[in-house]
Amino acid sequence: MPETILYVCTTCRREGDDPDGLRAGARLLDALRDRAGGTPDLRVEPVECLSVCKRPCTVAVAAADRWTYVYGDMDPAASAETILAGLAAYAATPDGIVPWRERPSAFKKGVIARIPPFPAPRPLPAGTPEAAE
Amino acid sequence: MPETILYVCTTCRREGDDPDGLRAGARLLDALRDRAGGTPDLRVEPVECLSVCKRPCTVAVAAADRWTYVYGDMDPAASAETILAGLAAYAATPDGIVPWRERPSAFKKGVIARIPPFPAPRPLPAGTPEAAE
Repeated sequence: MPETILYVCTTCRREGDDPDGLRAGARLLDALRDRAGGTPDLRVEPVECLSVCKRPCTVAVAAADRWTYVYGDMDPAASAETILAGLAAYAATPDGIVPWRERPSAFKKGVIARIPPFPAPRPLPAGTPEAAE
Repeated sequence: MPETILYVCTTCRREGDDPDGLRAGARLLDALRDRAGGTPDLRVEPVECLSVCKRPCTVAVAAADRWTYVYGDMDPAASAETILAGLAAYAATPDGIVPWRERPSAFKKGVIARIPPFPAPRPLPAGTPEAAE
């Protein structure tokens, strides 16, 4: 299985963050690391900013030959399990496109953008709906 | 110079689009192709959806070993020149991070997200500001 990379923005703040404590993004990183231990082929990488500052917390999911997805509005405590479940579904696809009904609700609502596999977009299969997936 | 790929969402609609005509995203693709002819190391790729449906028109910029940027709110006619100027600045950097003051205003306002170079984020240089770049 090719490695999946989960980028976690550690700069994301949330209203109510303790100014002397860890930011929400850093807390999400910790929660993900706590729960991701032992997950095969997953690398959790802190990033200083994903430029989605208005919808914290923010993560991005990427793997070779798969679409990259960016998600916002992730709760720093509660979303870690959801994110890991979503990543497992992502890793099980050939191209990163998880069928809509199999996506966690937080991914459906929180999707910020998706980017085709680099270097070339794969042709979409016939019958792919036109609207956002 | 490594190739830069400009993904253009051709599904993006704008209010006022002629229902029998080309969608705004497809018109932006045409405008970019018209003006990009002969630009070295640039590939313009149509994509069916970048999942930024609320901020049409949308494009993404990617290159090997550089950060990927996603931009929205692009005008289908007027933004082609701006996008190409922004891409030239992007291509001239080692990592895709164009200094803030050198970015086109439409890129500053329209940034949707940025994603680190795959497979690993590069360490940010000392003194990099914390907030969105």
